[in-house]
Amino acid sequence: MDNTNASGLQAQVSRLEHEVHALRTQIHASDDETITISEYILTRLEQMGVESIFGVPGDFNMPFLDYVEDHPKIKWIGCCNELNASHAADGYSRVKEHGIGVIVTTFGVGELIAMNGVAGAFSEMVPVLHIVGVPSTLQQKQKPILHHTLGDGRFDAYTKAAAQTTIAQAAIVDKVTAGPEIDRVLAQAITTARPVYLTLPMDLVSTKISAKRLKVELPRSPPPNDSEVEAFVLDEIVKLVEAADQDVVILTDACVIRHHVRQEVNDLIHKTHFPVYSSPMGKTSVNENYERYGGVYVGLNSHPKIKEKVENAKLILSIGSLKSDFNTGMFTYSVPASRTVELHSGHTLIRHAQFPGIGMKKLLPKLTERLHKFEEDAKQLPLPQYKALIPDEKDDIISQAYFWPRMGQFFKPKDVIVAETGTSSFGILDVELPEDSIFVAQILFGSIGWSVGTTLGAAVAARERHLGRTILFVGDGSLQVTAQELSTMTAKGVHPILFVLNNNGYVIERHLHGMDRDYNNIVDWNYTSLLTTFGDKDGSRSRSYTVHNKKELNDLLEDETFAKADKIQLVEVMMDRYDAPRALKASAQLSEAMAKRIAEQDPEA
Amino acid sequence: MDNTNASGLQAQVSRLEHEVHALRTQIHASDDETITISEYILTRLEQMGVESIFGVPGDFNMPFLDYVEDHPKIKWIGCCNELNASHAADGYSRVKEHGIGVIVTTFGVGELIAMNGVAGAFSEMVPVLHIVGVPSTLQQKQKPILHHTLGDGRFDAYTKAAAQTTIAQAAIVDKVTAGPEIDRVLAQAITTARPVYLTLPMDLVSTKISAKRLKVELPRSPPPNDSEVEAFVLDEIVKLVEAADQDVVILTDACVIRHHVRQEVNDLIHKTHFPVYSSPMGKTSVNENYERYGGVYVGLNSHPKIKEKVENAKLILSIGSLKSDFNTGMFTYSVPASRTVELHSGHTLIRHAQFPGIGMKKLLPKLTERLHKFEEDAKQLPLPQYKALIPDEKDDIISQAYFWPRMGQFFKPKDVIVAETGTSSFGILDVELPEDSIFVAQILFGSIGWSVGTTLGAAVAARERHLGRTILFVGDGSLQVTAQELSTMTAKGVHPILFVLNNNGYVIERHLHGMDRDYNNIVDWNYTSLLTTFGDKDGSRSRSYTVHNKKELNDLLEDETFAKADKIQLVEVMMDRYDAPRALKASAQLSEAMAKRIAEQDPEA
Repeated sequence: MDNTNASGLQAQVSRLEHEVHALRTQIHASDDETITISEYILTRLEQMGVESIFGVPGDFNMPFLDYVEDHPKIKWIGCCNELNASHAADGYSRVKEHGIGVIVTTFGVGELIAMNGVAGAFSEMVPVLHIVGVPSTLQQKQKPILHHTLGDGRFDAYTKAAAQTTIAQAAIVDKVTAGPEIDRVLAQAITTARPVYLTLPMDLVSTKISAKRLKVELPRSPPPNDSEVEAFVLDEIVKLVEAADQDVVILTDACVIRHHVRQEVNDLIHKTHFPVYSSPMGKTSVNENYERYGGVYVGLNSHPKIKEKVENAKLILSIGSLKSDFNTGMFTYSVPASRTVELHSGHTLIRHAQFPGIGMKKLLPKLTERLHKFEEDAKQLPLPQYKALIPDEKDDIISQAYFWPRMGQFFKPKDVIVAETGTSSFGILDVELPEDSIFVAQILFGSIGWSVGTTLGAAVAARERHLGRTILFVGDGSLQVTAQELSTMTAKGVHPILFVLNNNGYVIERHLHGMDRDYNNIVDWNYTSLLTTFGDKDGSRSRSYTVHNKKELNDLLEDETFAKADKIQLVEVMMDRYDAPRALKASAQLSEAMAKRIAEQDPEA
Repeated sequence: MDNTNASGLQAQVSRLEHEVHALRTQIHASDDETITISEYILTRLEQMGVESIFGVPGDFNMPFLDYVEDHPKIKWIGCCNELNASHAADGYSRVKEHGIGVIVTTFGVGELIAMNGVAGAFSEMVPVLHIVGVPSTLQQKQKPILHHTLGDGRFDAYTKAAAQTTIAQAAIVDKVTAGPEIDRVLAQAITTARPVYLTLPMDLVSTKISAKRLKVELPRSPPPNDSEVEAFVLDEIVKLVEAADQDVVILTDACVIRHHVRQEVNDLIHKTHFPVYSSPMGKTSVNENYERYGGVYVGLNSHPKIKEKVENAKLILSIGSLKSDFNTGMFTYSVPASRTVELHSGHTLIRHAQFPGIGMKKLLPKLTERLHKFEEDAKQLPLPQYKALIPDEKDDIISQAYFWPRMGQFFKPKDVIVAETGTSSFGILDVELPEDSIFVAQILFGSIGWSVGTTLGAAVAARERHLGRTILFVGDGSLQVTAQELSTMTAKGVHPILFVLNNNGYVIERHLHGMDRDYNNIVDWNYTSLLTTFGDKDGSRSRSYTVHNKKELNDLLEDETFAKADKIQLVEVMMDRYDAPRALKASAQLSEAMAKRIAEQDPEA
């Protein structure tokens, strides 16, 4: 070693020693660093990628909202009511991906209005944090008859109710447990993809706690699988694929999206070339333009060719399945367990054998590696591509059969497509959605009106992620449930396109029961004046249209100004009150058949 | 006895024997008579005076709605959403009096949206029946992943949540217990003046049960008091009145209205002439034009003269009190128990002694009889009449100080006056309301937006009872929570007058916290186009106005066409964003003082 080298190294050592000292000081300082509980929560949320929080102010949450409003990176999106805000948090969480939606409400009155949205997030597996501003810890002990209470001293009643619709609950009660409790529920929300509930009492909003825990970010992906069991599972699956002579189909479902294995699944299908189908709730879990994507499988409600291909495969590799009624054609799946491998977020099923703890996130990359060798043979498996085509109809009425495939041509890559429960979520099933688009629907929980707040949240998340347009399809009856949230969209400068299907009532309900009953009729609103009524007073920030026939619809869809969506736009689409999409009619029939089966089994009836 | 007489009597005996036989046959026949469970419920409701039922259709409740729609005397009022429907049932129950409000929702999605309204009815003591259409009994046992479930097989989760906000719950599960269970929860609702919850499964909607129980109507008034204890209580009260040298004031509160003793209280005050005051929640419990009515007592928040008179009386006879924060000037009542007698629905308090089971409904008439003798002396007690006068303001701005007393001149006997939580419910406190008017406010639960659905229910009940106009006062922020229900009012042909106080945000919140915070701002809607947007497309069935100054307000109020309210009318009242009624400002100050007291007591803060 020569002198030059030595002195160079010496300088380097000295520099590094300085750096170590500086870092140590920094760490030491932050060990002692304190932060208010409110800031602790917001820092955690920022770490999870949250840039917007939804809710409604109330006297028990306003001190916390001061911190939200003052936060440099997180925006407050005040909604018209908590129902819509809860839906917005749901939509935000879905479109943001790998994060969490957040709603802030006030004790009792506000949080109860939000319960539908929180329950929906539970049902549909969407991580949402519900923060409730509550009375001070002292008031919770002394139990005076405060406003917003039930008047009988039960200060825990709302938390007990919330426990039914959230996966975990935490009450902030002191400075020692606050940090760990916040972290516990957030980790639960992320791991289980479910909503959690957190009460923040008035007197602890600005209480200082240690900031030390914040240096370690919360884990965002599941722990590794037991390697021995995992290896066994992989061997078993490979054996079944071999035994099936590569006659394998992959079926992707809701949890591919909810548990964030879209990328892993896309690797699998591209490296194996097995034909892939999705369930209704699995739509956009894989790229629908991909040559090996065959369409939607939904039991008896599937296109016959798809049904045949899926049900006759020698092996079905089902990923992230969620077998709810509307997602399985009213439980008419015909894929026996003996020919099925099911990968789930927290367990694996191989035919009848259960492997708890073997989750798909870590399993899938290894499975892809093992199944890659079947690629050449798998490519030979025929895949009849079924696509809903625009029918050649004589009249000019906008039929459901015409509308949905026509919309398929309007979509662009990266669009976020929100379909309301009912007519819209059924109508869109047969439509191929473009690459990198995101399909948002509430097929399991199925709460009418949910899509409006959801569109607000989805559009905000899409803007943050630089995605494409947000496009909503909602029926008139559903829109009326939650219509006022168009106001917030207008005010916050997001530009969704809102297709309002005006067919004069609850069409899905008509097809399920009471076709001509008065209770399925609704009031005919002036839909095209909603945006100007709800805040765009001079009409400069929005556009509204009514399309009465195919020509008007086509002219609008081909209009470039319309398509570029630089303002919020509402399109009232006039449709026949008895018309319904194919999948909806089929589903109503299956539903009726199911009711009959039940009636026959039931001793009481 | 002569022959003529004997034969006459004989004929009479024979006639009566025939009648007895006919009646026996009739009873025997109806003993065997059966009725569907749905009809059983509707018959009970009809017996209780229900003529309208509110709700939203859903696939699990539509078979029941068939029965509602076909019922000859009960009307279905379909609402835009369940939140508004729950408020409508609350308002209907309050204005209908001696009855019950009814809301029908669907499993999970619908019932959760209604929870806020049901909880509000619990808090405010309003009898409401919440009927939820649920999956069949077989599905409840087999637990498939049905739409509207939480997806995890917990079919009882929603009922468990509902148990937190209702006084009794019943699940219809078979034909034997159905009748008794329906009766049990209805009786509970009436006796306690609280909401109850009833699930009706799809497969039992048309199941036949015995109609026998229906022959006995459910009791609508409480059982008699124990006569010995009651006599003792009466003696004790009389002794205290004597000891007080007749220096007695009567204080009437919420439960006078909720437990239907308005008539008994009015008898008491007219036969004794003791001065009478009411709490905010007791407004209209007594005729406010009555010469011995002195105004509203609300602790430190009272007019000084009222405060002095109430707090210095030697004995306070408090009837139906409900000591919540806003109803007591933030717990600043200064009426010691040692000088107080409290009459409640189910118990009596004499100074510090408790008399459980001695309820006011049966006690009051006897008390009136005993206290009648003090009338002449009581008449001598001076009663300074405090009335809010219209101030002589120089400018033309519609101030809060001006608006409320001016409205007082607009009211007429039998009007139903609904005041939203916040600015309106505080503003109206100092205004004397006319004879036989009904004041509807949610001062304890205080859920913003509640008054809109409530106005629908109140207006429907007022129409059924042939009362006067229904008049709503609502702030812009509150209206935005639930605005779409104006649609149902328009469609159902009720004609409320809706005063929308446009002051650009949540004014009550501003005064409680964050005066200039962005979260207290709202979007400025085009309020005068709400009614035409929400259904009155050609403007023929509604009128909308904006009043910018005192002159415009007065011109409108003096317009006879306006005042007769033959159409639904909306009046946007432009007000200053920082202005607030006296009582609201005082209450905000008391609230702040209370928070300070708490902070000083709290070891954590």
